[in-house]
Amino acid sequence: MKMTVNPLFTDLYQFTMASAYLSAGKANSIATFELFFRRCPFQGEYAIAAGYDLLQEILHQFKFSKDDIDYLKSLPIFQNADPLFFKTLLDLDLSDVEILAIPEGSLCFPRVPILQVKGPIFKTQLLESALLNAINFATLVATYARRLRMVAGDKGLIEFGLRRAQGPNGAMTASRSGYLGGFEGTSNVLAGKLLQIPVVGTMAHSFIQSFTELHFSDETWNGHSISNLLKEVKAESETNLGELAAFLVFAKTFPDHCILLVDTYDTLASGVPNAIRVFKILKKLGYKPGGIRLDSGDLVYLSKSARRMFDDAGFKDIKIFASNELDEIIIETLQDQGAAIDSYAVGTRLVTAATEPALGGVYKLVEIDGKPRMKISQQTEKLVIPGAKKAFRLYGSDNSMLLDLLTLNETAPKPGEKISVFHPSDPFKNAFVTPSKIESLLQPIFKNGKWLDRRSLEEMRTQSLNDMKSLRPDISRRANPSPYKVSLTQDLKQLLDQLYKKERPAPVLH
Amino acid sequence: MKMTVNPLFTDLYQFTMASAYLSAGKANSIATFELFFRRCPFQGEYAIAAGYDLLQEILHQFKFSKDDIDYLKSLPIFQNADPLFFKTLLDLDLSDVEILAIPEGSLCFPRVPILQVKGPIFKTQLLESALLNAINFATLVATYARRLRMVAGDKGLIEFGLRRAQGPNGAMTASRSGYLGGFEGTSNVLAGKLLQIPVVGTMAHSFIQSFTELHFSDETWNGHSISNLLKEVKAESETNLGELAAFLVFAKTFPDHCILLVDTYDTLASGVPNAIRVFKILKKLGYKPGGIRLDSGDLVYLSKSARRMFDDAGFKDIKIFASNELDEIIIETLQDQGAAIDSYAVGTRLVTAATEPALGGVYKLVEIDGKPRMKISQQTEKLVIPGAKKAFRLYGSDNSMLLDLLTLNETAPKPGEKISVFHPSDPFKNAFVTPSKIESLLQPIFKNGKWLDRRSLEEMRTQSLNDMKSLRPDISRRANPSPYKVSLTQDLKQLLDQLYKKERPAPVLH
Repeated sequence: MKMTVNPLFTDLYQFTMASAYLSAGKANSIATFELFFRRCPFQGEYAIAAGYDLLQEILHQFKFSKDDIDYLKSLPIFQNADPLFFKTLLDLDLSDVEILAIPEGSLCFPRVPILQVKGPIFKTQLLESALLNAINFATLVATYARRLRMVAGDKGLIEFGLRRAQGPNGAMTASRSGYLGGFEGTSNVLAGKLLQIPVVGTMAHSFIQSFTELHFSDETWNGHSISNLLKEVKAESETNLGELAAFLVFAKTFPDHCILLVDTYDTLASGVPNAIRVFKILKKLGYKPGGIRLDSGDLVYLSKSARRMFDDAGFKDIKIFASNELDEIIIETLQDQGAAIDSYAVGTRLVTAATEPALGGVYKLVEIDGKPRMKISQQTEKLVIPGAKKAFRLYGSDNSMLLDLLTLNETAPKPGEKISVFHPSDPFKNAFVTPSKIESLLQPIFKNGKWLDRRSLEEMRTQSLNDMKSLRPDISRRANPSPYKVSLTQDLKQLLDQLYKKERPAPVLH
Repeated sequence: MKMTVNPLFTDLYQFTMASAYLSAGKANSIATFELFFRRCPFQGEYAIAAGYDLLQEILHQFKFSKDDIDYLKSLPIFQNADPLFFKTLLDLDLSDVEILAIPEGSLCFPRVPILQVKGPIFKTQLLESALLNAINFATLVATYARRLRMVAGDKGLIEFGLRRAQGPNGAMTASRSGYLGGFEGTSNVLAGKLLQIPVVGTMAHSFIQSFTELHFSDETWNGHSISNLLKEVKAESETNLGELAAFLVFAKTFPDHCILLVDTYDTLASGVPNAIRVFKILKKLGYKPGGIRLDSGDLVYLSKSARRMFDDAGFKDIKIFASNELDEIIIETLQDQGAAIDSYAVGTRLVTAATEPALGGVYKLVEIDGKPRMKISQQTEKLVIPGAKKAFRLYGSDNSMLLDLLTLNETAPKPGEKISVFHPSDPFKNAFVTPSKIESLLQPIFKNGKWLDRRSLEEMRTQSLNDMKSLRPDISRRANPSPYKVSLTQDLKQLLDQLYKKERPAPVLH
């Protein structure tokens, strides 16, 4: 499935603003916009930047057709528009738009730009909505996936959310961001094909239900009569025999990949005993039995009971998969209680990021024609830090991340040199820092119409999981993490304070 | 943007199950699956069926390519698969799959099938994941949109959520479902073009910020010197003059569609006074001023204050739009407090259905080769009602909806005849009902490979809003609604009880 995007995929106001820039004679003013968020999702202290595949696609397809322009001309608001507006749209290309970005998969933090977009305001304004659409959701899911990775320890994590996503794009992005965040696989076959993510699957209840009785009369399996095999494992009527028939058919079809869903009728009274029968047959025929999936009930009690039943029957290698509306809190609880689960399948709560289903990413003008700009707000934490900034990540002597530093055009910070840093809005918070290592965060990703990041999803994932080791555990922990610092240099802090005083009329209360 | 879907867009287990059906010799067993939900979202008592555009696309594109098959062959789980499996996939078409559905836009209720899918189990099983993906999200958003429509009274509702949706599909579906549910427009231009939904838009903060000063030296507007016009409206420095310049440029570009965003610097101290200046100029030049948008702060206080300022200045027709994380509870509160708002713009909380971001729609096997099937569950409310059912909506003498009735193949209920109806799981709840009018809910929508519903989105929307009048207000209300009844006939209730006893082994506690 190719995500065929189109430059009409945007909010109408981008076109009205572009048209007004044109009539004000400033369509070619060079603007810098920054895409960032103000608060980490899930009450956490970090996020994982993602969504650059769709971003790349959007930039690549950013070309208006005659038909698109005709549609715009048909709108009442554009009835009297300057013909130059439509011509400018039709001729538009992005060769003079430059984008810097935090590399995909990197840790990112509030107010530090994920993207910095520079070019004629007519074009950079038009890009806003689609860029936010690309980055917001993908970053949200990659972040939640990483949080799940952190609570799941060394257990497996697979993504099962296709059916609850917002259409094919939503599902594909969830599979991709899930993998980037640290999942090992997905059930989404198209994501497997197009993104080379390992695919995983078991069976649904409908498969079990479709078998109503156990009759294999004269059928054989590797030369053995199935009826005899069943007799040896004492297939008796206290379990559901349709279920046993379904398990047997599945095992015969996939003897080396046999994972059985055990909760269709009753997990411990029917599913697990039937699974043990089938695993005994597989073992007798020389195959290695796979595992089971639990999809309802108390997963601690059921997994421990099933584990004991399998161990007692001599199947210590059987893997136990669990699903059923899992999220980071449930998985943390299951881990704490020592549930005998080897892999967690997470669907709905990953693909909808259910605890906080939107990232509040914004795209704000920070500079025009060399002049820094800011947006004021009645809410101090919504202030936009002015200027086309540089961003650095400072590390301590133990290689752990100390803080992210936003600067203007001052000389870049250097390892071993002490610098003075300031909180963006709290005047009582400043500090000195002497970094051991410094990374420049914003890298060119789109220039002269070309996409510059050639890393594979696999490479990004490996790097991203590795980066995580530099984040202190008290910052990465699920509940009540320590805050990660994002600071300003003295020059930037001064600019912010000056502009604020200049732009905002002090309200007169009466 | 065409949603190019592909039959690999599904969960892997659909393929493993299809393959196992084939090896069990039952690939052509005729199965009936029903797609339904068990509980209405948002603690409500109704939902609005939607998502049939994507459904139609999925069915239309359901054709495997050689390349798709090669990918499946490359998976370890299919290393030893029967070549007939791959051949069956490659040759597959849906001409012998029939789908009945509740017409799109209809009210729908728990356990009543939205879709009933009948055909060879090999095919009907494969369809599961994509069908759920199509229906779940679209139905969720249409339902939330309808709930917003109910609380917003006669106020306008526009959808602004593109930037927070899950990719282009998510945004397009949200625009479409929003409109179906009762919104009047969207900011999404592509939805305007492809779905003929009215598009709406104002301006962003970046537009205001991009103007740093007020200088129009020798410019004119309809023969008037702009400098003189500004003098007449007393452009003084206590408001932000960059904002005034931005408003003026926008007004000059769109004199008949001038809606101004007033909260960039300070709503009442700068935005509204500047808007009044520009509206005075528009009026002088013979134009009809449009309105303003409030996007932060206390919307009750600000809207009432702005309304008073406009009224005092002689602008009684100015419309006030409001946005900023609106949802059904906030809108209800704003309505209750008499906020002076004419139109609500809803973004994030509609496109993510934030209070409950997934509909728990499921796709369950209810019949195979003429035999009714059910899924048992330790949770009684998760029981699947067996059999390929018929569904009827029964109306009372005042044309209000009494209940939905599920039946087997009994004679259909008739107006004026008293029938005995049963609760699906609670043995203490039964009733008699004498309907005045009866509707058969499930209509053929896909047959012989053809899509049968030719209604436009506009027609569906009109019909859907009209249907709503038959739902009692105590059932449709936002908070603590009365339950809507979904009942079974005596035959169906008996079948359910019998099958339950037959399939489920009573657990032995020890």
